[in-house]
Formats: sequence, C-alpha cells, structure tokens
Amino acid sequence: MSKKANSVQIIPLGGVGEIGKNILAIRYGQEIIVIDAGLKFPDDSLLGIDYVLAKTDYLKANARYLKALILTHAHEDHIGGVPYLLKDIPLPIYASNLTLGLLEPKLKEHQVTATLQAVRHGQVVAIGRNFKVEFIHNNHSIPDSFALAITTPAGVIFHTGDFKIDQTPIEEATMDLQHLAAIGSRGVLAMICDSTNAERDGFTKSERIVGQTFDRIFSEHTRDRIIIATFASNIYRVQQVLTTAEDHHRQVAAVGRSMVNNIEIAASLGYLKMPPGTFISIEEAGRLPNHAQVILSTGSQGEPLSGLVRMANQSHSWINIGEGDLVIFSSSPIPGNETLINKVINGLYRNGAKVIHQGNADVHVSGHANSEDIKLMLALIKPRYLLPFHGEYRHQAALLRLVQNVGITSERCYLAEIGDVLELSAESMRKVGKVEAGILLVDGLSVGDIGNAVLRERRAMGQDGVVTVVVAINKKMRQPVGSIEIISRGFIYMKESEELIDDIRQIVQGVLAECRQIGRLHSEPIKEMLQDALGNFLYDKTGRRPVIIPLVVEV
Amino acid sequence: MSKKANSVQIIPLGGVGEIGKNILAIRYGQEIIVIDAGLKFPDDSLLGIDYVLAKTDYLKANARYLKALILTHAHEDHIGGVPYLLKDIPLPIYASNLTLGLLEPKLKEHQVTATLQAVRHGQVVAIGRNFKVEFIHNNHSIPDSFALAITTPAGVIFHTGDFKIDQTPIEEATMDLQHLAAIGSRGVLAMICDSTNAERDGFTKSERIVGQTFDRIFSEHTRDRIIIATFASNIYRVQQVLTTAEDHHRQVAAVGRSMVNNIEIAASLGYLKMPPGTFISIEEAGRLPNHAQVILSTGSQGEPLSGLVRMANQSHSWINIGEGDLVIFSSSPIPGNETLINKVINGLYRNGAKVIHQGNADVHVSGHANSEDIKLMLALIKPRYLLPFHGEYRHQAALLRLVQNVGITSERCYLAEIGDVLELSAESMRKVGKVEAGILLVDGLSVGDIGNAVLRERRAMGQDGVVTVVVAINKKMRQPVGSIEIISRGFIYMKESEELIDDIRQIVQGVLAECRQIGRLHSEPIKEMLQDALGNFLYDKTGRRPVIIPLVVEV
Repeated sequence: MSKKANSVQIIPLGGVGEIGKNILAIRYGQEIIVIDAGLKFPDDSLLGIDYVLAKTDYLKANARYLKALILTHAHEDHIGGVPYLLKDIPLPIYASNLTLGLLEPKLKEHQVTATLQAVRHGQVVAIGRNFKVEFIHNNHSIPDSFALAITTPAGVIFHTGDFKIDQTPIEEATMDLQHLAAIGSRGVLAMICDSTNAERDGFTKSERIVGQTFDRIFSEHTRDRIIIATFASNIYRVQQVLTTAEDHHRQVAAVGRSMVNNIEIAASLGYLKMPPGTFISIEEAGRLPNHAQVILSTGSQGEPLSGLVRMANQSHSWINIGEGDLVIFSSSPIPGNETLINKVINGLYRNGAKVIHQGNADVHVSGHANSEDIKLMLALIKPRYLLPFHGEYRHQAALLRLVQNVGITSERCYLAEIGDVLELSAESMRKVGKVEAGILLVDGLSVGDIGNAVLRERRAMGQDGVVTVVVAINKKMRQPVGSIEIISRGFIYMKESEELIDDIRQIVQGVLAECRQIGRLHSEPIKEMLQDALGNFLYDKTGRRPVIIPLVVEV
Repeated sequence: MSKKANSVQIIPLGGVGEIGKNILAIRYGQEIIVIDAGLKFPDDSLLGIDYVLAKTDYLKANARYLKALILTHAHEDHIGGVPYLLKDIPLPIYASNLTLGLLEPKLKEHQVTATLQAVRHGQVVAIGRNFKVEFIHNNHSIPDSFALAITTPAGVIFHTGDFKIDQTPIEEATMDLQHLAAIGSRGVLAMICDSTNAERDGFTKSERIVGQTFDRIFSEHTRDRIIIATFASNIYRVQQVLTTAEDHHRQVAAVGRSMVNNIEIAASLGYLKMPPGTFISIEEAGRLPNHAQVILSTGSQGEPLSGLVRMANQSHSWINIGEGDLVIFSSSPIPGNETLINKVINGLYRNGAKVIHQGNADVHVSGHANSEDIKLMLALIKPRYLLPFHGEYRHQAALLRLVQNVGITSERCYLAEIGDVLELSAESMRKVGKVEAGILLVDGLSVGDIGNAVLRERRAMGQDGVVTVVVAINKKMRQPVGSIEIISRGFIYMKESEELIDDIRQIVQGVLAECRQIGRLHSEPIKEMLQDALGNFLYDKTGRRPVIIPLVVEV
C-alpha cells in the first residue's frame, strides 16, 4: 500500500453503506487510532443471528501500531463491539463519563478489562506521536456525545459523530458554533459526516419539542395511567418524562432491564435530575392509582420480550395495560420493525388503551442532522474533503447531492465502502487500496463460525422443513437390513400423511434395489440417489422443497 | 342460532381485524350471499407459506343456502380465494367486466369452472327470493370497482367496497353522490365501511395528482430512460403512464409477468386507451434510446424476483438499470416490505440511477378513504348501524372514534371479529353467535395441511438448525451395532467442528451405555434420553437450541 510523506489514511471497517457497526481506523505512518467499535442488529435474512460485528483482521494484523480506541457516544452501533475487539487487542479507551458508564457492564459481562480514560468536552489528548484529539460536545439523542477534531501532521480531520444542531437542547449546551467556526478557520483537511438524515429537508426538530408535547398530553389525560415507551439510551427523553411527571405530580417507574439499568447508571453519574421520591419501583406503581403514575418502558420497537409487549399481553407481574391507560410511543420505527410495532398497537387498542405515536403527535424527534443541519456544519467547518459516513448508500448519495449546492464539488466528496483505504493530503484524496473487511456473525456463544452455507440451510429448512431417511446396510453381506426410518420436521404432519410416507418408503426401497443391482450398495451412492429421487418426488407431490438428509448406517 | 322474523345476519369470515382475505356472508332466512373471496399474503411468522385463505367451513356447512358470490373489485384480497372457494362450492359469480377478466386466468389455472355474470354500474340484480343487489360505481385504485346496496326484507345494507371519493378521477366518473344521497334518504339499515385509512386526516388525494407529477418529472428528465414501478392491478396508474408517455413522445414497454398480463387484459376489455404504437415489447425498448422510452414494471415492493429487482441487479435479459436511468416508485410500501424496498433503492443509487418515491414527490396516492371521505359517505348514507370492515383493529377503532363526531353513537357501531354472527333489525344490532372461522395456509400444492406445530418446527430450525443422530441396535442381542451417524444442517460447519462432533459422539455412547445398564436399550427410551442430553449439552456449549432428531434403527 503506497503511503506518501505527508498524508493520512482513513479506513472505514464498518458504518459506511449501512447504519450500524461503526468502526473506523485513522492511520498516520506507523500509528493507528480507532474510532468507535459498534455492532449491528441482524436483518431478517440472517436467521437466528444475534448480532453482526465488523471483521477486524486489519486491526489484528496491525495491532502493534494501534494506539487507542476512541468512542464518540454510548449507542450500541458505536460501543456494542468493544468487548469483542478488546478480547483480541487490548487498547486504552477514551470516552465520556456516560459512555464509559454504559460500556463498563458490557466489559464485565465479557470478562474483558481495559484502561478507561474519561475525557470531557474541550479536552485535547495527545495520542502517540502524531495524533492530537480534541473532544467536542455535540447534540445527539444521548448525552455526553462527541464530535472529534483530530489533528495529524497531514492536517485536521473533523469527525461530526452522530449529531444534529439543537438550539434548545435538554440540560446540556448546544454545540459551540463559534468554536466550530474557529476550527474551520484554521483549516480542515476532511470532514467525516453523519449522513443518516441527509434525505430529509430542513433542520431536525429540537428535543425540547417532545417535552412540550408531553406536557400537553399530560394536561389532557389527567386520569389515565401514562405509559411511555422509548429507547433506553435516550437519557434526555427519560429526563423529560421525569420533569413532566414531576410537574404533573406523578411518580415514575421503569419496566424493562435495559431501561432500569440505564436509568440507574445515568442517575448515579449525575445525568438525570429528579427530586427524591420521583422514581419508584414497579411494585409500588402497581399499588398507585392511575393518575399518580407514569411507566417508562422498553419495547418501542415492539420487541416480543420487552416490557411494553409483556404489559400489553397481560403477562407482566405488576402492570397490565387496558382501559384507562394511555401509551405513548416516544420513538420512530427502525426500518424492519414496522410489523412488530403494528401488532403491539393493535393489541393495545384491543385491550381498550389509547395510543399516541409519532404519526399523531410530536412525541419523538430524531438525533441526526437533516440537510440544513449538515449545510450549517459545512459552512462552519469548510473542509477540503467530505466523507459521508453513518448512512446507507442512499443517504451517502443524498449528502453528495446536497453539498453540490453549497460549493463542494463531487471530486472533493468520496462515498467510501467498507475496507477502502483512503489517502488524504493537501493535494489529493484517493483510494489507494482495500483491506480485508466484512461481517462477523454472533450466534449464541460463538463469533464468526456461521457463514453463508449455514444461513442458506436455515432458510431452506425455515421455508419447507426437513425430511430425514435412514437405512441400514449390512457391511459383510452388502444388503439392506432392518427397517427404513423416515422422520420429518417442519414439512408435514407425519401422523396425517401415511400415504406420503408409504410413497417415500417405496422410493427408498427402489433406490436400494437399484444400487444393489448395479453393485453399488454403499453409503455415498445411496445418499446421492436418495437425495435426487426424494427431492424430485416431494416437489412433484407437494410443491415444496424440504431439505433432505439421507443417512446410511453400516452394521 | 337464534333468528328473528325480520332480521338479517352479517357474518364476516375474513377482512375484519386485518387487511386481507376479505370474505363476508350475508344471510336472510334460508338464503346466503357471499361478498368477495380474497387471499392474504403471509407475514414473516408464517415461514414458507405462500398464501393465507379464510376458513369457509360455515359456507360449506350451509352450501344448500348459498345463492351467489359477488365480487366488489379485482384486487387479490377480494378475488384471490375464489378458485379455492369454488372448488368446494360451485356458485354463480356477479362482478364487473374487468373483475371477471382478471379472475378468469386464475380459474383456468386451478381448472375451476363457474357461471360468470358480468354486471354494470346501476344494475340491480335479484338474487334468490330475498336479495336485490345494486352495483354502484365507486372510486378505488382499480377500475370497475363497486359499492353495493343490498336490499333485504329486513332493510338495506350498504357496502362501501374499498373506496375513496375522487372528484377528479382518471377516465371513469366520480361516485354519483346524488344517487348515494337518494339511497341514504330511503333509509339504510347498516353500512359496511372501508376503514383502512380511518387514522388519516383530510380527504385522500385524487389519482389525477399523480399524472400531474408524472408530467412535471417527464419535463424535467428529458434525457433519462424512465422506469416506473407500480402495482400491476392499478390500471389508472398504467393509463396515466401511457398518457404522459404519449404527451412526451415516449413509447412504453412492460416488465414483469403480472404487469404484462394485466395490461393485455385491461387493454383487450377497453380499460386502457392508447394510440397504436405506444406500447412496445421489452426487446424493442432495449434497442431504443433512453429518452424515447418508459418502462412500466412490477417490483414496487422490492419483491426479489420482480421485474424491477432483476433490472436493478443487472440480471434482466433486455434492460439493466444504471447511469441515465430514473426510477419512480409509484406506490407505497406495504407494511413489512420496507427493508426489501430500501435494499432496492440502495442498489439503484449504487448503479448510478436516480430514484423518486412517495417520500420526495406526489407519485402515489392511496385508493382508500381518509377520514373526511368517510364522514362524507356517512353524511350521504346516514345508516342506522355502522360496521367498520377492511382494517386492522387500530383502523376499525379509529373509525369508531371518528364517527362519534358525526353523531353515530358507539352503540350503533360494532367492531366485528372474524366468525361473529351479527343480527340486525330495525330495533337492534347484536352478536348472536360465532361460527367456525380462521385461517387456512396454502403451501406449495396443498391447502390447510400446515398448522402451528409445523410452523413452530420451521421457526426453530430456521433459528438454530437441526442435528440428526442415528444409532443402530441389534434386535436380538439388544446391543448397539455399527457406527454412530451424526449430521447437522443450519447449525454449524461440520467440517470445522470435529471437536464438537466428538463430544456429541461421546454423549451418544454414554446414553447407549446407560440404556443398556438399566436394560432399556429400546428405540423410545434411547430417543428421549438423546433428545435431553444433546439438547442440554449443545445449549451449554454453543448457546443455541437446534432441533434434535434422534433416530434408532433396529437391525
């Protein structure tokens, strides 16, 4: 890989061409820093998979050059892969207090130890001989989130982090636009930009709007028990619920493990403000009258085992939702979850509850920059090169279209793909290579042992089931012995399919007779012929293609 | 089931509490008519299922009373189940010309014959001794669609069909509001009302808007090849594409089997107007310059085998989408399809195409009544009772909330469930019973042989795969013989898991030894013990729960 004297390399290993598993290497000479190490939740095609991680072969191969892992904020798509990365490569971690607070239980669960270095807004940390990283407070849907100004001998790389520009944020300050302008004035080589919402017009709405809506809803529903489902990590949203509840003389309880845990951690670190007594246990809430309580719950995506879904299905120990309940979905559906959420909403109405969601009130705002937020950021930073990150290809492409109008020509913009090695200098930005990159599937306790072949089998069996056929062959006599065993799962009801099973048996006997005749009564030819004969027969007969497992026991 | 002198029964067998498989029985005394017989597409939980039908046991049990099947329009959720119903019960069918035209190939495919009676707007047909059915033109997203005024001795039942009120429809007339008012003035016992869009404010936009948007887009993209993906049944939309193409001197070709078939049928019946030469074959389009053509395609839902997806994946014989192509999604995502559609849009951008969809232009309007359309219909018909149909529970409930504001009290409204027997008379509407109802799954060539147990097995195998273990037992000696065969699918790569397979082998040997010791070396106890021992071992070792199939061959 070529490397000119004064250039810096940017190597995304995840988080471009997708939303999820953000992980990015920045390399100057013999030094590398890593920004974020996230995970991604699997889509429907990844049957049975728990999480998706980025392949980090490049980092392993260059472990001796790695200087630090920097985390921009505590969302799963930025920190969920940290324990897996650190198992392979021990690295000091720089992150905000809240990010570290939410990371620690994950490290503990995976029995991983690391040097954790808490950093604050405005702090500049020298890493290795070539990097100076300034941590800059930004606005996002979780507190204590950072943009980064990374000074290298080749120039400054400005990483927006996940951001929006919120002029009236909750608790924390708005981004320091004067400071951003000063960074921009001194010259920025490249800006790595959140492109999630680049297709959306205007500015992203302020988080504060949600609190105003809550206040109105609470005023209009003074008798109902109010249940608010939101993302457990959205501490601002939790704060707004606590504040509104306090204003309306209601106490708040939490349902769902991650909601309870995150509230505990955020409160203990000082990120949540509430008068003593505001927060109560769910058992206490169960004894309070409706009008005196608010339930904060997980399950805004309709997850089948979440707090909200258990309460909606009347299977929660303390709280079950019905008449006199108002449920607020303070969230937006993550693409792919629409059907699950819809099912929950139907169930809630069926039980007599009222439902408010993004579609009928301002109960949610995004944490990502719309097109005007992005343009404003560009006007402040004025980078030489622009890299749309944190988006699917359509979002990256939308950002590219957007910036044509603000004077950034397409040669100065690069839609990177996972594994691309981009080399940037004052003179040029170009792709100089590609490193090993891709996905690692986490299934149960193991990482990376599931590949496409196994997924294809899962899909095939999930569609049409499996038919297993066993025959025994006498080794010495070379003849079939004993009974032919036939068993299916996920294909048909065997008890109601005697005729079909008799047909299968006859086909098996036919195959055995044929093999015997041609003197090939051996395991492999029998299996091959059974596979073909049964596959064709069952497709003709049923229109289905079950996975066929022929087994031959030699006795 | 009780049945008073002058009352009529309404019995939904599908299409309430869901969108899909509409089928409804109306019974007066010893006479029954059936309205629609649709199918539903399976959701993700119904692995491997092709279609979902309504159970029609009630109709079969009362076959001698059935007088006719009436079809309101030609969408799959209204006619897709007709061949299956008619296989069991021969019935005369009343429907519009287009509906019959689109139904006929389905009947032919299933080798079902029926008496088909074409009816026209304004026609009144006497069915049996007790029913007079008036067919009334309405506005929907397919031409030749009907509302029904069904006169019975107990009163008039007005069925809206799937409708919206379009003041500026394409080709056909708007609904005759004066005539609806006249029907209402004479008195309507009950109105069965489309509730799909009851949650949406205002009036549904006119189909004409889409044509205006097409015209603007065509004017702005004079050089690009334009590809428009829409629902094959939306003949109005097809007409608007043809008209716009003609105005802009482009010829039109179709891609996708259902698009080609529907256009042929609609054109042959006179539902599409185009000057000769407008329509060309896809081979011809392949030879034309970009600016001279429009491609009409299936695939607006991202269906993997559709025309659009094949063109987007560069796997179509004649047309492949890339630079210089503009793709219009003239459609809305059906809930659950968002991820598939998103994947296609990303791919299109990646190939260099431009994409326009509902999110960035008025290229689609719904065919269903928003809340104002519904209120207007109620004001014209003024029914005594209201039955929200054609909607999930949330939509039915929204309609109920809506009508409180226009003077229909909740006692006059009933949110029916599938199988409910509602008895209506001038004095009352009440549920008097429940008939056998539910779903029938179509999988491959068979109907109804797949139930929950099989689906559970498919889900389990789709998640974690299957492990099959075979042992052979000598019947006479009561001892294990031959090798232990272990094979897995969708669980792990067997080739890379020798250690795990050795462990499994040892567990099997342990079970056999134990069975022998306790003198139970027989098929059933061995299988049970293998199931438990292997299930526990594999979960501890891998965190997964594959389906375990233990097999014992006695030789």
